[in-house]
Amino acid sequence: MPPLPARLTELIGQPVHAIDTPALVIDLDTMRRNLTRMADFAKKHHVLWRPHAKLHKSVELAALQIKAGAVGICVQKTSEAEIMVAGGIDNVYISNEVIAPAKLARVAALTQAVAPRGGQIAIAVDSVQGIERLALAMTQARHAAAQGKPASPATVIDVFIEIDVGQGRCGVAPGAPAVALALEIRKHPALRFAGLQAYHGGAQHFRGLPERREAIAGAVQAARTTRALIEAEGMQAGLVTGAGTGTLVLEAASGVYGELQAGSFLFMDADYAQNQRDPAQPKFEPALFIKTQVISVHAGHAVCDAGHKSHAIDSGLPVVHAFGAPSELEYFNGGDEHGILRPVAGSTRLPELGQMLWLVPGHCDPTVNLHDAMIGVSGGLRHGTVERIISVDARGALT
Amino acid sequence: MPPLPARLTELIGQPVHAIDTPALVIDLDTMRRNLTRMADFAKKHHVLWRPHAKLHKSVELAALQIKAGAVGICVQKTSEAEIMVAGGIDNVYISNEVIAPAKLARVAALTQAVAPRGGQIAIAVDSVQGIERLALAMTQARHAAAQGKPASPATVIDVFIEIDVGQGRCGVAPGAPAVALALEIRKHPALRFAGLQAYHGGAQHFRGLPERREAIAGAVQAARTTRALIEAEGMQAGLVTGAGTGTLVLEAASGVYGELQAGSFLFMDADYAQNQRDPAQPKFEPALFIKTQVISVHAGHAVCDAGHKSHAIDSGLPVVHAFGAPSELEYFNGGDEHGILRPVAGSTRLPELGQMLWLVPGHCDPTVNLHDAMIGVSGGLRHGTVERIISVDARGALT
Repeated sequence: MPPLPARLTELIGQPVHAIDTPALVIDLDTMRRNLTRMADFAKKHHVLWRPHAKLHKSVELAALQIKAGAVGICVQKTSEAEIMVAGGIDNVYISNEVIAPAKLARVAALTQAVAPRGGQIAIAVDSVQGIERLALAMTQARHAAAQGKPASPATVIDVFIEIDVGQGRCGVAPGAPAVALALEIRKHPALRFAGLQAYHGGAQHFRGLPERREAIAGAVQAARTTRALIEAEGMQAGLVTGAGTGTLVLEAASGVYGELQAGSFLFMDADYAQNQRDPAQPKFEPALFIKTQVISVHAGHAVCDAGHKSHAIDSGLPVVHAFGAPSELEYFNGGDEHGILRPVAGSTRLPELGQMLWLVPGHCDPTVNLHDAMIGVSGGLRHGTVERIISVDARGALT
Repeated sequence: MPPLPARLTELIGQPVHAIDTPALVIDLDTMRRNLTRMADFAKKHHVLWRPHAKLHKSVELAALQIKAGAVGICVQKTSEAEIMVAGGIDNVYISNEVIAPAKLARVAALTQAVAPRGGQIAIAVDSVQGIERLALAMTQARHAAAQGKPASPATVIDVFIEIDVGQGRCGVAPGAPAVALALEIRKHPALRFAGLQAYHGGAQHFRGLPERREAIAGAVQAARTTRALIEAEGMQAGLVTGAGTGTLVLEAASGVYGELQAGSFLFMDADYAQNQRDPAQPKFEPALFIKTQVISVHAGHAVCDAGHKSHAIDSGLPVVHAFGAPSELEYFNGGDEHGILRPVAGSTRLPELGQMLWLVPGHCDPTVNLHDAMIGVSGGLRHGTVERIISVDARGALT
């Protein structure tokens, strides 16, 4: 990774008001509370915990999570895995399908890179072709050893079969089609069947608790049935991995899921605050903010310098943070570079020209991807100090 | 700017199929046709042409546009202006309000930086405080000369008064409030009143031509009236600057606008294809694409590796490019990393696993911001060759 620019590192030790706008800021005290609550939750429910690094895209935060008890991390892309391994993270699961032979060669190279460190790479599959191409890449990487390259002929990759448990995106159908893939994996010595990926992304954002319960009950049933069929073939069933921040309580209590992939709990998207709260869910609070400044004030509205180039709007617009009080301002989309602020019903109060405001992004993962670094503040957003600059190492890692 | 990574520069001279996915690709032949058509249009209508670099964020493309006849470029942010000036672009207009004193000091420093090169910086204002703070920053930069720093006490900044012509975002009301700001600018020797910014962003996307005509007629009237009032104060009226790709024909024909800021014509967003076409508009064609690959195929849908981390979706989802034929596939949002493809009505045909597809982004400006570089192909997307890698120099330039 290139070094962080001086304009950012010079902020360390400065008060919050020294942060230029717009900027991506972590409330570190809150983030650390979220982390402890997640670690405690996983321990209490006897489930493994492998947070999705697509949230923070940061080697430093991945290492922090592993130190807190996570067994490793998930990523979505080969290039994200490469960045995490280069940063010293040894246990990386690419929870997504990879099809291009050139990418699979890179995945296989990662398995060789982490093996001497005692690490392990895992990947998801949902097709026979995907398995065959992966096996070929693994075999070729093993043969590199015979050509004098540093490679181990015993290196294996863990392979999870992704089953579609209601998301309607990737994943083979539960039951017999998944069993067929497990049998296919068994044919290849460099592949180790590791279990099932059963992630229901859509259910994370179902507003009502009953709807989330029904969706995850279906996912649990699909995973349980498929697991039993695989065991009936004489295979070790492996882990069932999945779950996000919106539903993790349900998967943890299922007795079927052995590993939780939830990542967003660390920062908590504004979107999750719209969900009917599950009383069993740990208290996760917003820890990621956009600091913004008012640059124009008019009758009835003001304009700030944070538009959707500063924060993602795929899961709704950001919310104006009011430090626990009801917000007096609503944020409206003003384009790439502007946000429009209007008083909420019952209020007429507008911010002043030059005033600083804090926004809670609707969706943290793609928001983080818009920034080179996150500015970590301890002591609170109002009177705190910049403690550290956290690099978004995997920003723009698309391939 | 950091050097481009080898994985990109090694592509030069390679065929299109060597480009890993997802990737941002420019069809250079089409882009160059769009550029020539815009240059010819401006010449024919006797208007200046200052394209908005918020589209491409690239020094190389800014220089290409200036070589083709543009008088300079627009940017939205101080940091974008800094990157363009560092790259050798001397004529830069920050078409947005800047309020933070620290940022205004950087703007003033830019005026000093380009002055020896014969360049000129301009900025927009919409408040008395904005003018006063800008004047203070300019005075302080001029005084740097007295302290032995390389600075000229004669350096001025061009100041455009932004009037709100219907966008409802920044901008003072047309008429007397704008005149008051012009008189305010006149008080400060380091500020030179340059004219009016009268940009109607919303009108760019009005689907019907009558609606666009009505909106721009209102903008023209507001600019004309305000200009006359300023002239009545004995001031030079300066330029009226504005217009986007959706309406530029109307501003060019107005007799009031002297400068067009349109930028998107170079790449043409999919969103603009939804507008009822103005017969007087030059033929601009899509030149920016996301190359993507199918990673999962199911009954009724396929999944590709380009989600909204690869392209912005604020102005609608991307369109599957069909090389002039009607597209047989519709793109649905599959999250940050996935796109879901379904056959259009009347078709059942799905792409194959591993198949390459091309997407036309809904909105190019924030799409470009998601990428470090644009891969420039000549000879067409099907059989062409990578000619050059164009750095997105101002990617993530937020402040």
